[in-house]
Amino acid sequence: MTVDIARVAIQRISGEVRQDSEDDLAVEEPLEIALAYRGPDGPELRSLSITMRTPGHDEELAVGFLLSEGIIQDRGDLREVRGQRQGCRSNLVRVALQDHVAVDLRGMERHFYTTSSCGVCGKASIAALRTVRRYPPAAEGSPPFVPAGLLHRLPERLRAAQEGFAATGGLHASALVDGAGQVALLREDVGRHNALDKLIGRALLEGLLPLRGHLLLVSGRASFELVQKAAMAGLPFLGAVGAPSSLAVDLAREAGMTLVGWLRDGRFNVYTGSWRIT
Amino acid sequence: MTVDIARVAIQRISGEVRQDSEDDLAVEEPLEIALAYRGPDGPELRSLSITMRTPGHDEELAVGFLLSEGIIQDRGDLREVRGQRQGCRSNLVRVALQDHVAVDLRGMERHFYTTSSCGVCGKASIAALRTVRRYPPAAEGSPPFVPAGLLHRLPERLRAAQEGFAATGGLHASALVDGAGQVALLREDVGRHNALDKLIGRALLEGLLPLRGHLLLVSGRASFELVQKAAMAGLPFLGAVGAPSSLAVDLAREAGMTLVGWLRDGRFNVYTGSWRIT
Repeated sequence: MTVDIARVAIQRISGEVRQDSEDDLAVEEPLEIALAYRGPDGPELRSLSITMRTPGHDEELAVGFLLSEGIIQDRGDLREVRGQRQGCRSNLVRVALQDHVAVDLRGMERHFYTTSSCGVCGKASIAALRTVRRYPPAAEGSPPFVPAGLLHRLPERLRAAQEGFAATGGLHASALVDGAGQVALLREDVGRHNALDKLIGRALLEGLLPLRGHLLLVSGRASFELVQKAAMAGLPFLGAVGAPSSLAVDLAREAGMTLVGWLRDGRFNVYTGSWRIT
Repeated sequence: MTVDIARVAIQRISGEVRQDSEDDLAVEEPLEIALAYRGPDGPELRSLSITMRTPGHDEELAVGFLLSEGIIQDRGDLREVRGQRQGCRSNLVRVALQDHVAVDLRGMERHFYTTSSCGVCGKASIAALRTVRRYPPAAEGSPPFVPAGLLHRLPERLRAAQEGFAATGGLHASALVDGAGQVALLREDVGRHNALDKLIGRALLEGLLPLRGHLLLVSGRASFELVQKAAMAGLPFLGAVGAPSSLAVDLAREAGMTLVGWLRDGRFNVYTGSWRIT
């Protein structure tokens, strides 16, 4: 088993029958991401974020998060990425950047949701993303082209690869699928955004960005945040087993991405970029 | 329909058959929560958070968020709560506090995850929560007592009340259930934490805290964050249709809460506080 799991004592109740038993749970623990970089006045060390995640692949998570937030662009920006023991467990990753990386953390969160002209709104969020995104929107008519029949086979392949979900029922998954429909990389986590950050972080560390030739498959719903992360990694195709939100569709359209939802049971809906489905 | 929904043009693909159609999506838009309060040096106005939520019940969301974060304790702490138009949409709520409320926002996030002795970890997160929680842990053996048969009927009642989910498939729900098993209040949102903040915010505005006599029912999984919010509102009973995480179970135990998971199809698992199931 590659995912962190905890066994606990429970009572199982079926109708009126009560039975002592055990259950396997997805482990959830906080992770702190700290950033070391050269500021205008010398070296800085800042705690950026604390996220509730399933332990494992923490360095990938940290690096994927930094890419998603527009703080780094590729592995050439990294000097060192290191998980560190802190107190009772190892729940800290320290990322040190190369000196050439200009870091501006003021209002990091606001970068993604606001423009000076329009305040905070969905339209502004999409416009703001344009200013931090390294990879331009994919052009209308651009590849990859994906047969519908291949998509129909993906939910079963995803499920077969979800070891942690099979054991606990409590983990979200993100998978990179290659042009032949094979799951090339999979990450699981209690948080759907963490699963995707781990996946993208791994790809970044291997120098695979932008992921122009791959499909991204997620086990749940497609939110703005997931589409944002996919766009930051240059992914042209997102398939979700569940429903997308309104803003996820708007952003996917703006990014030239194909967004497929409700991918299950031999059916799916195409929300944007339908030219890629053959 | 009480939930904000957007209709979009899509292609539905079933097997090899492709058909132009329409689909209803859950609306997702950012909401900024701003806090006005009296600081040590005079009046302060601070932007606290930007969350991606489904528009509607925004004032409740803001107030529930402030309770969950330990910034306010009851409605007596509020002077004014007001949604404000900002640019193209109304995506800002401004909460003004009474002068007696002492606000310390330094490291707000860290309060919940860290103790000075132990750094960031799950155990520390639970210990830290103890210091900001108004309502003490519920005692072993304390009510409410809930017949298993009543719990078995809840998933169907929850589903029947989820208007927005029925229309979109893309909304999480939180429901307050009374002692007779009736859904007394329900909120839906693209974010599960938002749905619960809206519910708790509503209860706070009506002066109903602590919610000692109610059950909380959530449509998905039970994370640390959801159990944290329930504990901050004094809720003694959390039922989830999906799986809990390890840390959700640990926190529920520490708070004297009953945590039920996998509540569906005439079955459920009891993770903590089994004395309340009769």
